[in-house]
Amino acid sequence: MSNKNSVGKIDKKYFNFAEPPNELLLESGEKLGPIKVAYETYGTLNDDQSNAILVEHAFSGDAHAAGCYEGDEKPGWWDDLIGPGKALDTDKYFIICSNVIGGCKGSTGPSSIHPGTDKPYALTFPVVTIADMVKVQKHLVNHLGIKKLLSVIGGSMGGMQVLQWVASYPESILSAIPIATTLKHSPQQIAFNEVGRQAVMADPAWLNGNYYDYGQPERGLAVARMIGHITYMSDRSMEEKFSRKLKEKNKNLKFTTDFEVEGYLKYRGDTFVKRFDANSYLYITKAMDYFDLSGDKLIPKNKKPEVRFLVIAFKSDWLYPAYQAQDIVKLLKSRNINTTYCEIDSTYGHDAFLVEIEKESHLIRHFLRSVSGENGESDGYSI
Amino acid sequence: MSNKNSVGKIDKKYFNFAEPPNELLLESGEKLGPIKVAYETYGTLNDDQSNAILVEHAFSGDAHAAGCYEGDEKPGWWDDLIGPGKALDTDKYFIICSNVIGGCKGSTGPSSIHPGTDKPYALTFPVVTIADMVKVQKHLVNHLGIKKLLSVIGGSMGGMQVLQWVASYPESILSAIPIATTLKHSPQQIAFNEVGRQAVMADPAWLNGNYYDYGQPERGLAVARMIGHITYMSDRSMEEKFSRKLKEKNKNLKFTTDFEVEGYLKYRGDTFVKRFDANSYLYITKAMDYFDLSGDKLIPKNKKPEVRFLVIAFKSDWLYPAYQAQDIVKLLKSRNINTTYCEIDSTYGHDAFLVEIEKESHLIRHFLRSVSGENGESDGYSI
Repeated sequence: MSNKNSVGKIDKKYFNFAEPPNELLLESGEKLGPIKVAYETYGTLNDDQSNAILVEHAFSGDAHAAGCYEGDEKPGWWDDLIGPGKALDTDKYFIICSNVIGGCKGSTGPSSIHPGTDKPYALTFPVVTIADMVKVQKHLVNHLGIKKLLSVIGGSMGGMQVLQWVASYPESILSAIPIATTLKHSPQQIAFNEVGRQAVMADPAWLNGNYYDYGQPERGLAVARMIGHITYMSDRSMEEKFSRKLKEKNKNLKFTTDFEVEGYLKYRGDTFVKRFDANSYLYITKAMDYFDLSGDKLIPKNKKPEVRFLVIAFKSDWLYPAYQAQDIVKLLKSRNINTTYCEIDSTYGHDAFLVEIEKESHLIRHFLRSVSGENGESDGYSI
Repeated sequence: MSNKNSVGKIDKKYFNFAEPPNELLLESGEKLGPIKVAYETYGTLNDDQSNAILVEHAFSGDAHAAGCYEGDEKPGWWDDLIGPGKALDTDKYFIICSNVIGGCKGSTGPSSIHPGTDKPYALTFPVVTIADMVKVQKHLVNHLGIKKLLSVIGGSMGGMQVLQWVASYPESILSAIPIATTLKHSPQQIAFNEVGRQAVMADPAWLNGNYYDYGQPERGLAVARMIGHITYMSDRSMEEKFSRKLKEKNKNLKFTTDFEVEGYLKYRGDTFVKRFDANSYLYITKAMDYFDLSGDKLIPKNKKPEVRFLVIAFKSDWLYPAYQAQDIVKLLKSRNINTTYCEIDSTYGHDAFLVEIEKESHLIRHFLRSVSGENGESDGYSI
């Protein structure tokens, strides 16, 4: 995609809080502090702080959603959606994106230095949940002087955080855009995550999490990531991208990568281990598996938050199938929450939320205009 | 399931052939010999050798399809389908099942002793294909004095072997029953196999295949098997079996198996490593990935084999989706081959071919009666 209408050069920022003895109380009852949060902002906060939108990243994502760092040509992961004139229009909105705690992209996580021991936390890092990640974001949003977010938006695990904002801080958001996500993981989703964790922990180089002096458990982590990538694509998008094309003529070399799809997965696995911490892999996948806002947990009985919803799913997404988005919508409708639902026709599978920018942009642009009162009521797509 | 109408106590038998210098020529051009084939038979071959049915096992299966070994209560893997009065009726038919070469259940494979070195072949074992497996079966069938099989039947990789019989020896079979299978692996199917292989080879205990003196690469092989089991079940059958039930209260123990589905996969992985050779895992999955009878390869141009087909698929099977069975049927119909197709309504996913015995039995029983001339023409289900 082009860099036209980019937000331009961007700096990563840091917000530090929860200094002892004021550590953050986590959902598990454990405490964590100090906490560093890596974040970025695009656009300008208006005078009444009413134009802020929080972007939530997915499992292996980070705070770098748009623009480029100095000396780096690669734009942020949702650059096509965020910028002047784009759906998340930085001429209108103030966009915030932060790295989740438990991660490894600048925010405090298992690879961070434990202040008491001067060594990485490793498995002494407390269990963190999606609610803990959102609680940290609430501190950041308060720090930025924002009382109410115009919207919270994200796909996959980002969508879980969006839903968690509704459950935890319904008075602090005007609207929510959960994309390709679920109220809770199914056993199949847990199973894929668990096999990934088992692959990491099966690698002797994992050393029960204490590998920081010796290097990552690269082989196990690469296998885990390969499994992930199969689930991110659809049967059809793999067929279109790879078919049964052979990588090179090496039929005599046993168990090398013959097929292009094998080479692709291997490449994805090998690059992942260079950018992602194995313990963060364990902590964050577990946070997703524990996540459960089904029943009355998203919206407590006898409450009706003034939050409007745009729920988006993709037809070929078999990791977060459309029926899970429909379960969110059914729940919201049963509580008379203003909800717009769209199932986008795409062959890209779960990856679609990062790829089908044009279709998403159309929906998001109109929804945000409607939420901010620019064009009256929501325009269709409701089920 | 009950042991009523069992074929009773069964002995494993062995057929030895391809003694040097008469080794078997493999598809790769390499030679293999001597070859030992483990097989079992149930029922009695009739005088004109016209009642023989060859049963083909799936990836990790073996020759023990029915009955029990002396001192073992566990019946063979398709015991509910094979026996007196059952769909594969041993009062009428002579049933044969053999272990594939490349495997580890009695037939020659990478864990067999190389006659030249007195050590296991390991990776010096030649690449074997589905065509090689079937070629060996043809030698066994000849050895048993059978010129023409009444039918060849099998699910999953067993179905690939069924199709290969049509391609390799169309004059030697009267009918074919491929179940839950495909003409060729899609990139997604290759990808799942490849991740399994990578998990095995990532285990340092694999030792480039030379682990026989030290024990299996258990952790890598277990991870590979866990991936497999996710693909054998459906999203819905996992939901019905496990939901989000917790295994035990151990939320404070990090990264243990919290959810029942995790415990199930772990158990399946751990038991698999006790019964299956890691190198066989590599060889056999690769044979499946190389398999390709699309286009004119199943039935050469200008040929019309006198083989009747019953093709079976299962609605919730997402590993071998029904569209792949339909591709087989379309190909057969375009060549005017007598073909019956049935898509069985099941929630069991790919496992259905081992589980939905009653529904399969009905179809198979009628088809075989029709093929053996007991009740005239095929009765319906054609598309």
